[in-house]
Order: sequence, then C-alpha cells, then structure tokens
Amino acid sequence: MIFTSDNWAGAHPAIAASLTAHSAGFTPAYGAGDLDQKVAQTFNRIFGREVAVFFVGTGTAANSLALSAVSRPGGVSFCHRDAHVIADECGAPEFFSQGSRLVPVDGKEGKIDPTNLEAEIARFPQGFVHAGQPVAITLTQATEAGTVYQPDEIRAISKIAKAHGLPLHMDGARFANALVALDLTPAQMTLDLGVDILSFGGTKNGCWCAEALVFLDSSMAGQAAFLQKRAAQLYSKSRFIAAQFDAYFESDLWLDLARHANGMAARLQRGIDASTNARLAWLSAANETFPIIPKTLAKDLTAKGALFYEWSAPRSHPNLVGEDETLLRLVTSFATTEEHIDRFVDLLG
Amino acid sequence: MIFTSDNWAGAHPAIAASLTAHSAGFTPAYGAGDLDQKVAQTFNRIFGREVAVFFVGTGTAANSLALSAVSRPGGVSFCHRDAHVIADECGAPEFFSQGSRLVPVDGKEGKIDPTNLEAEIARFPQGFVHAGQPVAITLTQATEAGTVYQPDEIRAISKIAKAHGLPLHMDGARFANALVALDLTPAQMTLDLGVDILSFGGTKNGCWCAEALVFLDSSMAGQAAFLQKRAAQLYSKSRFIAAQFDAYFESDLWLDLARHANGMAARLQRGIDASTNARLAWLSAANETFPIIPKTLAKDLTAKGALFYEWSAPRSHPNLVGEDETLLRLVTSFATTEEHIDRFVDLLG
Amino acid sequence: MIFTSDNWAGAHPAIAASLTAHSAGFTPAYGAGDLDQKVAQTFNRIFGREVAVFFVGTGTAANSLALSAVSRPGGVSFCHRDAHVIADECGAPEFFSQGSRLVPVDGKEGKIDPTNLEAEIARFPQGFVHAGQPVAITLTQATEAGTVYQPDEIRAISKIAKAHGLPLHMDGARFANALVALDLTPAQMTLDLGVDILSFGGTKNGCWCAEALVFLDSSMAGQAAFLQKRAAQLYSKSRFIAAQFDAYFESDLWLDLARHANGMAARLQRGIDASTNARLAWLSAANETFPIIPKTLAKDLTAKGALFYEWSAPRSHPNLVGEDETLLRLVTSFATTEEHIDRFVDLLG
Amino acid sequence: MIFTSDNWAGAHPAIAASLTAHSAGFTPAYGAGDLDQKVAQTFNRIFGREVAVFFVGTGTAANSLALSAVSRPGGVSFCHRDAHVIADECGAPEFFSQGSRLVPVDGKEGKIDPTNLEAEIARFPQGFVHAGQPVAITLTQATEAGTVYQPDEIRAISKIAKAHGLPLHMDGARFANALVALDLTPAQMTLDLGVDILSFGGTKNGCWCAEALVFLDSSMAGQAAFLQKRAAQLYSKSRFIAAQFDAYFESDLWLDLARHANGMAARLQRGIDASTNARLAWLSAANETFPIIPKTLAKDLTAKGALFYEWSAPRSHPNLVGEDETLLRLVTSFATTEEHIDRFVDLLG
Repeated sequence: MIFTSDNWAGAHPAIAASLTAHSAGFTPAYGAGDLDQKVAQTFNRIFGREVAVFFVGTGTAANSLALSAVSRPGGVSFCHRDAHVIADECGAPEFFSQGSRLVPVDGKEGKIDPTNLEAEIARFPQGFVHAGQPVAITLTQATEAGTVYQPDEIRAISKIAKAHGLPLHMDGARFANALVALDLTPAQMTLDLGVDILSFGGTKNGCWCAEALVFLDSSMAGQAAFLQKRAAQLYSKSRFIAAQFDAYFESDLWLDLARHANGMAARLQRGIDASTNARLAWLSAANETFPIIPKTLAKDLTAKGALFYEWSAPRSHPNLVGEDETLLRLVTSFATTEEHIDRFVDLLG
Repeated sequence: MIFTSDNWAGAHPAIAASLTAHSAGFTPAYGAGDLDQKVAQTFNRIFGREVAVFFVGTGTAANSLALSAVSRPGGVSFCHRDAHVIADECGAPEFFSQGSRLVPVDGKEGKIDPTNLEAEIARFPQGFVHAGQPVAITLTQATEAGTVYQPDEIRAISKIAKAHGLPLHMDGARFANALVALDLTPAQMTLDLGVDILSFGGTKNGCWCAEALVFLDSSMAGQAAFLQKRAAQLYSKSRFIAAQFDAYFESDLWLDLARHANGMAARLQRGIDASTNARLAWLSAANETFPIIPKTLAKDLTAKGALFYEWSAPRSHPNLVGEDETLLRLVTSFATTEEHIDRFVDLLG
Repeated sequence: MIFTSDNWAGAHPAIAASLTAHSAGFTPAYGAGDLDQKVAQTFNRIFGREVAVFFVGTGTAANSLALSAVSRPGGVSFCHRDAHVIADECGAPEFFSQGSRLVPVDGKEGKIDPTNLEAEIARFPQGFVHAGQPVAITLTQATEAGTVYQPDEIRAISKIAKAHGLPLHMDGARFANALVALDLTPAQMTLDLGVDILSFGGTKNGCWCAEALVFLDSSMAGQAAFLQKRAAQLYSKSRFIAAQFDAYFESDLWLDLARHANGMAARLQRGIDASTNARLAWLSAANETFPIIPKTLAKDLTAKGALFYEWSAPRSHPNLVGEDETLLRLVTSFATTEEHIDRFVDLLG
Repeated sequence: MIFTSDNWAGAHPAIAASLTAHSAGFTPAYGAGDLDQKVAQTFNRIFGREVAVFFVGTGTAANSLALSAVSRPGGVSFCHRDAHVIADECGAPEFFSQGSRLVPVDGKEGKIDPTNLEAEIARFPQGFVHAGQPVAITLTQATEAGTVYQPDEIRAISKIAKAHGLPLHMDGARFANALVALDLTPAQMTLDLGVDILSFGGTKNGCWCAEALVFLDSSMAGQAAFLQKRAAQLYSKSRFIAAQFDAYFESDLWLDLARHANGMAARLQRGIDASTNARLAWLSAANETFPIIPKTLAKDLTAKGALFYEWSAPRSHPNLVGEDETLLRLVTSFATTEEHIDRFVDLLG
C-alpha cells in the first residue's frame, strides 16, 4: 500500500527489456545515434509537426531549461502557487535563468486562476525596469492537485499569454495521465491550445529516467542545445534515454500505463467516497487523490503498513481540514495494484 | 573498428541485468532507498573511510558541482589546458559556480606541470580583489591524453594545493582505467595523495549513466545536497544509478572492464609501434592511444570502416605532427575486441 | 510641490562643497585613501564597535550584496511583500545571489508580521532540499510605507531570526529618517536589537550617491570585498563617496536633514488631517505620507503643479481606498520647504 | 611624483563646479531628467548618429554589461591576455554573463594579434556544444600597455568579428587618450571601423565617477535597461553622472585633459630616452609609460618620493627585463604637472 509517490515505483518490464535489448553495439554519443533520431521522429509524429526535442534526466531540468530558454534580465514567470517549479525544485528555475523570479498565482484545485493571473501580470508594467519584466507562464498538466485543466481552461490562460506576448510552458511531469483523463491527442492538449514548450515526463509513468524538453514552437529552441550542455544535461550515452522512450511509445504503452494509474486513483476515490471516515478534498482526474481523514485514522493506516504523505492544505482552500483531521496525498502509478487499493479502502472503514 | 570514444559503447550485460533485477517493487525516491544506501556503503568501503557520495547523471555535472562546492566570489580554478572541464563542458563549471574562472595550465602529455601551476597561482596574490582568488585545483586521472599521473606527480600537485590552501579535485571520468594502470587502491590514488574531491565515473567504463560526486573530505560537502538539487541533478528514481553501481562493483567488475579496455589500448600501441606507417605521439597507460599517421592513411582507414577522431596537436607538443600527417585519438572500452584491434593494426600496414 | 521621491532632490550644499574641497590632490584608489579610512572610523564610532564597511553606489547594490553575502544554494530570504528588494530592484538580489529566492511576508503598514514570518519559514523544513533553505530575513527601516518599526517590533523579528539561525539584514535606505523618528542611536536601532547587516543609505537624505554596506557582525564580511569587486561596485575614486559621507556625518548633518524631512512629512500629515477632502491611509513617522483623496482632486492637484505618484493599495490593507478615491505617496526630503507643504495643503482644501 | 594610476587623481575643478551648479532643485530620477537627456544628445552628436547610452558607475560595470548584453549560453569572448576585463575585474564579466568565458589572445604591446585571434576563434567550431560558442570580441583603446591601435589594426580585428558574426566591443576606459593620440573623431575611431559597443570612460580623465555604456549599434541594446537595473547600476540621482559629463564635454574639456595627460607621458618618455639608466620597454602613445630600470634605482626613486607600480613583464615580451632590472608602469593624468615629470626624470639621472 505505497501511495507516497509515483516515483517510488521502479521501471516497467518493457522499459527494462528495451535497455537490455539496446545495450550492445556501438552508436554515436550525445544524441546523434539512430535510436535517438527514431524517437525524435516519434515525437514529431505524436505532435503532428516538426518539434525540437532534447532528452534530459529530470523533470526539474526540463522545466528549468524551458524557462531559461525564454528568460530575459529581470525576468518574471508566473506559475500556480503549488506548482512543482516553485515548491519542489530548490530554486533550480531561478538558478538556470540567472535569478529570474517565479511569481505564485492563486487558484483552486491546483489550477491557475485567469483573473488572478491577469492581476499578477499587471504588477509588471511594460518597460518599467524597477519591477522586472514578465517572460513566461507555466502551468502543470496534470496539476499537483491531481486535477486536470480542461481545454477551455488552458485556452483561457494561453489567451492571456498571447495578449502579453508571453510563451506558455506546460510542466507535463504527468502529461500522459492528463492526456488519457481528457482523451485528447498530445497536439490537442498543447499546440491547439497555445502551449509553446512542454516538459514531457516519462519517469513517473514507468520509465527509470526519461524526460524530454519539447519546443513545440521550435523557434524558441535556438539556444537550447547550448543551454542543455552547459547545464550538464547532455548525456553521452543518450541512447539509454532513447531506449526507454522507444519502449514507452511502442504500442501506446505510455497511455496504457497512465490509464492504469488513473484507474487506480478512480477506484481509490470511489472507496473514499463510500467510506464514512473519509471524504475527498476535491475530485481529481489523474493519479493523485486527496482525502481528508481523522488524524487517528492516519496513524492507524500507517501502523498497518500504508505509506503516504500528509499534505499541507493549500492556501486556496482554507478551512478545508478540521482540527482533528489531516489531508493525505495518495499517488498511484503503473505499479499500483487493485489489491493495494482495496486493502487500503478496507482499512479506511 | 570503432575508436571514437568509450561512450559509443552501450552498457555491459551485468549492468543491464541489474537494472532489470531492480526494476520491480517500491523504494523511497531521491536516494533514500536501501540500494542507494548499500552503494554508498560500498563507496565507504572502497575508500576506507566515511565519504560523502552524491549520484549524478553526467561527468560534467560531477565536475561542475565539485568545483562550485568549493568556489567563492571571483574564484579561479586551475586545470590542465586540455582538461575536459575547460575544453569540453560548454562552460558548465563556470555556470554552476556563478562565473568562477578556469585557468589553463600547460604541461606535457595531458599532465599539469607543477612549475607552471605555481606560476599561474602566483598571478593571483592573496586578497588582491582585482585579479580574483584561487579556489581549487583540478586534475584528470587518467588524463585526456591517455596518460596516467604517477603517485609522485599527484603528490607534487597536492603539495602545491595544500601550500595555498586549495582543495584538490580529481576528474575521474576514467578513474578505473588509471587505477588498474597503476595497480593502486582507490584510497592510495586519492586520499593518500591529498585528493579532496573526486568525480567518480562509471559511464565510460560499462554503465549507462552512473557518475558519483565523492567528497573524500566530507567537510566540503556541507552544501552539496542543495547544490545537487538546485542543479537538477537529484534523480527521483535514483535507484537506477545505484543499480548500475551495484553491479559495477560486484566481484570487481569495474576493474575487470578497465583492465580489458587498457589491455586493448596496449595491444593497439604494440601494433602501432610495430607498424612502419605509424608512430605513437606518446605512450599512454590507460585506454586512449594517440598515433600519428599519414593523412592519406587516415582517409584509407576511414574508407575501410574504421571510426576515430582526428585530434588537435596539443600546444604543449608543438611540431609533433608533420604537414602530411595527422594525429588520431583511438579510444578503447570494455566493448572493444581483440579482433577490432587486430583488424585495425592490419590496415595500418 | 514635488513629492514624487526623495531622490528627485539633488545634493545638499555641504555635500557638494565637500566634493569640491576634496577634488584636488592624489590619493590611493579603491578605498585605500585616508579619507576613506577616516569615514570607516566614523562608522566604527557611530556603531560603537569595529564594523566592516563597504562603499557602494546604489541601495540596490548594498541590499543585493548583503543578501548574497549570506546566501547558500537554494537560498530563501524573507522580506515584507512591499519591500524594495522584492518590488523595485528588478531581481538584483536574486541575480547577485545566483538565483536565491525572496519570499514575501504580509504585514500591516509595511512591517513584517512576526506570525506570518514564522509561517513562511515553516514552509522550508531543515534539510529538505526540494523546498530550498532559509538564509536571511530582511526588513526595511524606515519602511516603504513611511512607518517605523518600534524597537520591540525589530526584536520580535530578530528573535525569530536567531531561533532559525538566520542573519537579519536591515535595508536602511531611509535609516536616518527612522533614527530621528525613534530618537535612538545607530547601535540601539541595529546591534542592540539583533541586526547583523545594514544597508546604510545616504543618497535619499542629501547625498548624490553614497551608500554603505555595513556588516555589524563583521564575521559575515569574509567574502564581501570580492563580492563587491565582482559586482562592479568597487569605485576607483572611492574618495568621492567618502567625501560625501564625511560631510554627511560632520556636525550631525545627516540627522538634521532627516529631522527636516520628517518634520515636513509631519506638517503634511497635520494638513491632511485637517482637510475635509483627504484622510491618511495610516500614520507614518518618517518622510513618506500616504493620503487618500478623491480622484478628481488628484487630477486637480496635478494640474496645479503638484507632482506625486499614485500608489497601489497594499494587499495587507484591502478596501482601504474607495472606488472614486486614490492613494497617494508623498515623499519629503531635505529639500522640501514649508512653503511646498503649505501650498499643497492649501490646494487640498 | 605620483604615477601609480590615473585614478589616484581627484576630479577636475570644472567637474566639481558642475556638481555644485546642478545640486539644487528637483529633477526626475533614474536618468529621466533634462540634464541626462541633454548629455544623451551630446553622445548622439559626438558619434553622429542615434546611439543608446547608459550611465554606469564603474568601467568594470560598463564592460561587464556590454559583454553580457551580447552573450549566449556557453558564450566565449576574446580579449587581449592583459586586458582589464580578464586581468583586473575579479570575474565580473563572467559573473554578469552567467559564466561566459574570456579567452586570452596574445599580441605584442597590449594589442590583439589578428592571426592569434583567428586561431583562438577556430577552436570553437560552429554548433559544437562541447566547446561553447564565440559571442564577442573586446579590445581596449588605449591599451593597457599605453599603446594605441591604429585604425587599420582595429579594422583588421573588426573584419574578423564580422566574418564570424561577432559583435565588437571597445573598452574605452582611456578613450579620450586614444582619440587625441590618433587625432580622430569618436565616430572615426569606432563606428567607421566596425566597433558596435563602447565602454566610454570619464573617470580616469578627470571625472569622479562617470562611465557610459554606449551601444553604437542600438539594436544590441534591447535588454540593456533591464541588465543595468538588475546589476544595481541604475543610479537614482543619475543627474550626478550627467552633470559630470556635461562639464566634461563642454568646450572639449575632455580632449584637453587627455591631451595634457598624453603630453605628460610624452615628456616622460623623452626623459627616459635621454637617460642612461632607463630605457623604454616599448613606445606608448597615450598616458601610460613603461620604462625598464635597475632594481636599485627603483628603490631609490621610491625612497625619494616617487610612487608607481612595478609591472609584470607581459608574456608577449619574454626576456624583456634583465635579472637586475624591473619594469615600471608610470601613469599620467590631467593632474600631472611638468614639475612632477621633470623631477622624476631628474632622479633617473
């Protein structure tokens, strides 16, 4: 019953098998090999256009490189208050972009509120050097709250981005989970809605270590190869990332794994809904579930072998959690089984 | 006959097998799992003391984090003119350390010349803010010229380092190759000679992607965990690096692989020595060989399927290469076979 | 009737005279001259102990160097939401400190609320690399709201700083104004209350360009000389800053100028209080006054030659300003005359 | 007899008088005042076209901002080995430009040798991420050796710059000294020869603190206002720099002062030439003179009250200085008198 994070799982057998299959033989280093090229073509196919793809090792790297690629002096990027870039990356985006700033925007259920976004951008009048200058907007899909932006919600944000001439970045650490939740194609969830740059995550969904920085608008990728190398994110045996992605995309494995993880979360939510001891803080659509339960029950669950993190109630949802209660974050993955879920739900009572 | 680089090889079967073996099951992320801890213990055992180990994804990351860990404002680090840090990392060490400078030091056969080193350090008088301040010395073992510093040579450099209060870093991208060439223990080649920080490379010697930043003097590691995370080098499924190292150290696989690579280089050097068409630029001890051959022969070799890079003659060896000649760099690895070598030597004539 | 900012004034005649007096003759550059040393001694005398003083050209430089002097990787500093460092320095503190972050803390009337401060610090648990690590607290005295922290209020913040092992920085761009408002000595308003580093401003109070970065705890100044030079803030003819400070401190000119500026603000506040068309947003103690007036009146004042900025209502004071109203910031200085004030008050009606 | 540096002098009386004259009254801050605008127009007039001018406080700031304005990730700039940017700025250019690198180019008498420059640039093949990418060339006029590039010499370098698509920066800390030495107009010595960006120095030539970053090609200034502010180089009472420049340009004061300083150097050189105890290391054209004298004489001169720095023999001039000899740098300025020179020459014997 491990619900701490989807990165506590290992790698899917097909991913491991691909690494073994590609481990022999010589191939050009630093991404110039055939397999790297094949996977780059797969990205083009998936998005229905020529995109610029860079394999990197961590989601933090993808996000930080994306934001630094479009940053300028005194740069300010806007993100949700609970976004991974601002809450969990130890200042990497700021470090990569020479001290540009992340400005948190409030919004319910992990989503940037467009009105709040406009209000924050307005604090930085054009050409006013004292305040700094807006350089990007970044949203997370699926969000850190397990929810998923609807197409219209992304469109609303991208409209603001375009109005201010700002590139729109999507942190897709859980891109596949959002995709299957919405039943859209990759292009439909990004390009068609005005997303310019994507951090495409494979690690949380069954890979060992496979992230891709994707410039959907390849005109923004001009300096990316140098940014990547300078950031120590150009892998000599880059083939090892390509091999993971190759298996990941094969026969839509990635979508199947995401469907499974989301399905496990849905099953968990149904169980919580049915329990008299727990309630959902909000309904999520991807692979993270946020129940509120009595503190005593949390202790009990832990004692009985369940692993999870207690979560801070978001500022956008004050008074959500009672004094004797606690908010949990439960993350499912490709490796979560129905048995895990049912045992946990059973313990909830 | 692929001699371009040891990073054109894939992964040794035992490394691939270990990844498969460890792919199932849940384990704490970000290096907190059992396997990570086990490998950390292995590092302690190998060096005979408690060291501080951080797994990272590239040698560039290890080097850049090492130098930034000991940098200060206006910092200046000293390296060989042809060192990887200054020649092949796109300014990553400078980027990581907020613009500290790398000062090239000349020396024959890829090794820092102690007299030149002293002369360069002397250009930065203590407390003289205009020039900047020395903060580190870094040497590469085995060197980029395929040679290996003898213990006394390292000691001479470390003596200078200590005299100036400078930490001594070793770029060990080919650490194992140097170790077996000298037949020393890891501690004998580092700690006992005054090395403080080590970039311990596994990738070039049979891993996919396994590098470790090792603070032999763990008092220098105070900020390293934050440096690592901020640089996007903390891997969530860190287990995938640990699994590689676990197999790497098992039954001294790493030393066997390095012995093989060095042996192939020795076989190559014997063949070059015996050829009337080629001569060695210098004798190397690890897995890189540098012959000088007629330009026409180089074309011929390429036409017949040999892959290698032509190399710039180092500034420390002017007039080494005749007008009709070219200098080659030939790199062997765990995956090089006797047949590759013999075929190539045969073609040399 | 110019109330836009205290930096719209020029230099006090005594400052100009000192520059003239010291313009002849040769003197060692870069701060090594006698006059620089004399002024450094004056700082020691004023604070009653050996402090480490560095002359810089802008308040932004002093603040940014102060924060970078104590920063560490993933560093987070805490400031008031409306503090100059976060609102008006174009990201300089982040740039100087390699991307460390400023976290805004709410509080009424420009002052950090200690409870909010504790809550923000608590978001960064010790050793948790994902979030980053607290490295400093910075407060502004006098505040950007024209108010002045009482000694007990500073003590409350410094107590939190000490509890978390954080250095406490004071942005004293209007240090003199606060000092005379509280009738304290420099040491009483800083050292005795636990302030470690001070940005000591002279520019807004009658100098042309004279700011000092003062390490009251000189153990924090270890790298400051290199930080200053690397930031292009070491002035060759440093004497020109020293000459300004020399006149500034002579016969307590600085305190007289601040008393005058504060007195003008007090006169203005009395006038506003007496007006039926205006009210004070809050009572200030230094040289900035914040009245709320009808929008139509603001236009009228402008038409009649008054210059001022309309100000955003602070988030900590929502609903302060009615729909037909506007909030003004009126800044007085050594150059403001009673006549300016009285004419303005007269126009208020 | 003070020949240590031109920055040991104070300010010319006309500069001091201008500061006094402009010290009263209110004016918009941050460069928006009338005087700032007037001086900006003067720059336009001097260069015969609309240029983009930014006032900064130090030459290091001007140089570092110039290079960072045109830098890119992995950026490499080329300068003379003894250039101020690489020898005397504590890494500020690297710090400002996020770790871009300065590559030293050898050349006699302080001037970049075009052949060496080409050779250094060739080490960075286009698009080869490992090495980094060339982003700028910077030369110093007058040079740090007191010499002056002839127009053809600048043209040769600018031709290389254009061929590689690199902006050409001129460090004009002693711009006026070079100008009068060559008897050219500012445009003739820059624009007409292909210089794109200029650090225009006033400080060493009679100002207190007046430097201007001038984008002759204003298309390169796009981010400069934000760069300047983020670097803490936007002065609130910017008028104090403008007032200095206003007097500096008035009736060609700047050219007169430079002519005087150069004339004093010429007088000094004549004296050295005539002395049997001293010889010139090379002939200089601006306000720095480099004699070689016996070490015993140097001691004697010091004992008799002469102040100067002993200088390292440049690498480009090995064997220049005998074992019992020493190389001096003697700098003259607007404040140097004939009496100083004659007394010194007299002491030489």
